[in-house]
Amino acid sequence: GAMGGLGLALGLWRRQAALAAAREDEEEKELRQRFMAPPVSGLRELRRRRRELRSRMELLIMETQAEVCRALTALDPGASFAVDSWERKEGGGGISCVLQDGEVFEKAGVNVSVVSGLLSEEAARQMRSRGKSLKAKDGKLPFCAMGVSSVIHPKNPHVPTMHFNYRYFEIEEADGTKQWWFGGGTDLTPTYLNEEDAVHFHKTLKEACDKHDPKLYPKYKKWCDDYFYIKHRGERRGIGGIFFDDMDSPSKEEVFQFVKSCAKAVVPCYIPIVKKHCHDSFTPEEKLWQQLRRGRYVEFNLVYDRGTKFGLLTPGSRIESILMSLPLTARWEYMHTPLESSKEAEILEVLRNPKDWVH
Amino acid sequence: GAMGGLGLALGLWRRQAALAAAREDEEEKELRQRFMAPPVSGLRELRRRRRELRSRMELLIMETQAEVCRALTALDPGASFAVDSWERKEGGGGISCVLQDGEVFEKAGVNVSVVSGLLSEEAARQMRSRGKSLKAKDGKLPFCAMGVSSVIHPKNPHVPTMHFNYRYFEIEEADGTKQWWFGGGTDLTPTYLNEEDAVHFHKTLKEACDKHDPKLYPKYKKWCDDYFYIKHRGERRGIGGIFFDDMDSPSKEEVFQFVKSCAKAVVPCYIPIVKKHCHDSFTPEEKLWQQLRRGRYVEFNLVYDRGTKFGLLTPGSRIESILMSLPLTARWEYMHTPLESSKEAEILEVLRNPKDWVH
Repeated sequence: GAMGGLGLALGLWRRQAALAAAREDEEEKELRQRFMAPPVSGLRELRRRRRELRSRMELLIMETQAEVCRALTALDPGASFAVDSWERKEGGGGISCVLQDGEVFEKAGVNVSVVSGLLSEEAARQMRSRGKSLKAKDGKLPFCAMGVSSVIHPKNPHVPTMHFNYRYFEIEEADGTKQWWFGGGTDLTPTYLNEEDAVHFHKTLKEACDKHDPKLYPKYKKWCDDYFYIKHRGERRGIGGIFFDDMDSPSKEEVFQFVKSCAKAVVPCYIPIVKKHCHDSFTPEEKLWQQLRRGRYVEFNLVYDRGTKFGLLTPGSRIESILMSLPLTARWEYMHTPLESSKEAEILEVLRNPKDWVH
Repeated sequence: GAMGGLGLALGLWRRQAALAAAREDEEEKELRQRFMAPPVSGLRELRRRRRELRSRMELLIMETQAEVCRALTALDPGASFAVDSWERKEGGGGISCVLQDGEVFEKAGVNVSVVSGLLSEEAARQMRSRGKSLKAKDGKLPFCAMGVSSVIHPKNPHVPTMHFNYRYFEIEEADGTKQWWFGGGTDLTPTYLNEEDAVHFHKTLKEACDKHDPKLYPKYKKWCDDYFYIKHRGERRGIGGIFFDDMDSPSKEEVFQFVKSCAKAVVPCYIPIVKKHCHDSFTPEEKLWQQLRRGRYVEFNLVYDRGTKFGLLTPGSRIESILMSLPLTARWEYMHTPLESSKEAEILEVLRNPKDWVH
């Protein structure tokens, strides 16, 4: 009868609900395995708004963090990443993964942050490198900013330092229109020049860019050389890579796909270089030159880097996650000048006059 | 006769001229012995305008440089200062004395600079901490700036780092009026707190100040705590000392005498502390904590120090002399936190909440 039919329907519904819950648990388990920690926005929330770009970007930065951490750990099996999930009082939070004093890596940090809240017009203007002005309601702009950023300092002076950062911003203006843009880049800082490595690194980045538009690599390669400039030394921090900011065309989807290609290129860019050199022998003199170059790295990051400066000035930002980019150790010698035609002079020449590594 | 008289007069004049030349040679020799190198303005010129304050100040900073270098060398006999005299294309120059990797001192730099030329109105405004605006002729202001500045980083973690700087500025406005002011200070950065040393250091500074005005020490002690603040860490760089800027009253002569007392206090402030501790034994853990504190020193100098920032932005400034304040080695560990009630926590407490050491 009717009661039997109702009972059947109820049973069916219960079975379906139980299946859905099991599927969700399964997905949650799988996602947890894919990531270093549960995402800031929560898995349920990310699944609920899975079609929104900020959800897809949050998954991408979480995946990138895990991919890079796994690839590094595979090369330094004795070491492991300390994973810190942190919350930001003003909204959002992050996950910092740091490996310190391993066999292969002196210090490797991979940080994800997903923050949101209200920005002053002034702070919003500073966030964009071109300083577009935005119309605020009551002087405040709702915003959302997320990114993955990483610096890897290896021990062996024949393995270069690598940095990457991919980020996404959304700001809502008074009339409800949403401004959005992407930024990012990947760049290499060797202690000694190895042309083959430089070509491999740039070639891998170029291929990732070329899939989207052949104009991108040359433009972002130059932007990278211009950005990582230690003005008071007349030197670049490293041999470059790509760097871009304020990227908001041709479309949100296309820029996201470009950023995804770049993020996926991090491991193939860098890991083969680490594998190739992490057992190279080196002299105390080579280690010393590495320490001096680490000093220049600190100079760039503390004096010029926009991200670091912005972070240090932002109330409520997590200082340890910002300064995790600094090397474990660095050195400054007064008037250190490499001998002419030495390997030290060779890399300096390239830092003073950037080269094109691929055409 | 007349000719004989003339010959006699000529002979007398010749003898007097020869005596004067000999006296000058003697004085020159003596002055050269008193200084690390010939003064930027030249001895003859300094003697010619010996009554002018800028000549007296140049002699004071040269003497201070030599006094400090001699006192340090006496404690580290195996090491010696490299002395570099340098010229600035735009006018003036300096003398940098650096001792590196000695037995007692890791890196000790004592730098004199005496520069002059034309400043833009903007640059002139930035030079004064209170940002007074000055009236320029054709947008340019003739200026003269001189100072002695020094940072001493010892090897032993029980010997504190010390910094001092004494400087004098003159700027000529369009109507010919000369603006002038003094600035300076001496401050201590221990790795571990030693109350007796802290009291000795502050007491010596207080006595130097009190001779001139009992209001000066409390005012400049507070200014020092406020200035050497690493905002993003919520810590001062060290346990302070004195700091002042824009000092232009009660009179040029009185301020000069005050600055002279401060400069003469550098050696008695610091050298007894070095002597007391330079043979103290220390553990690898203590050396490590020193290296982490050196990292904070770098953070302050590169992120906040007005002198360093001004120097890095000034075209034609000598970068090696500006950055000689950086330690030979430094270290950054992610999330390093001293144990509660440890000696490391004890100094942090004082850096977070400055104390009054003398009353």
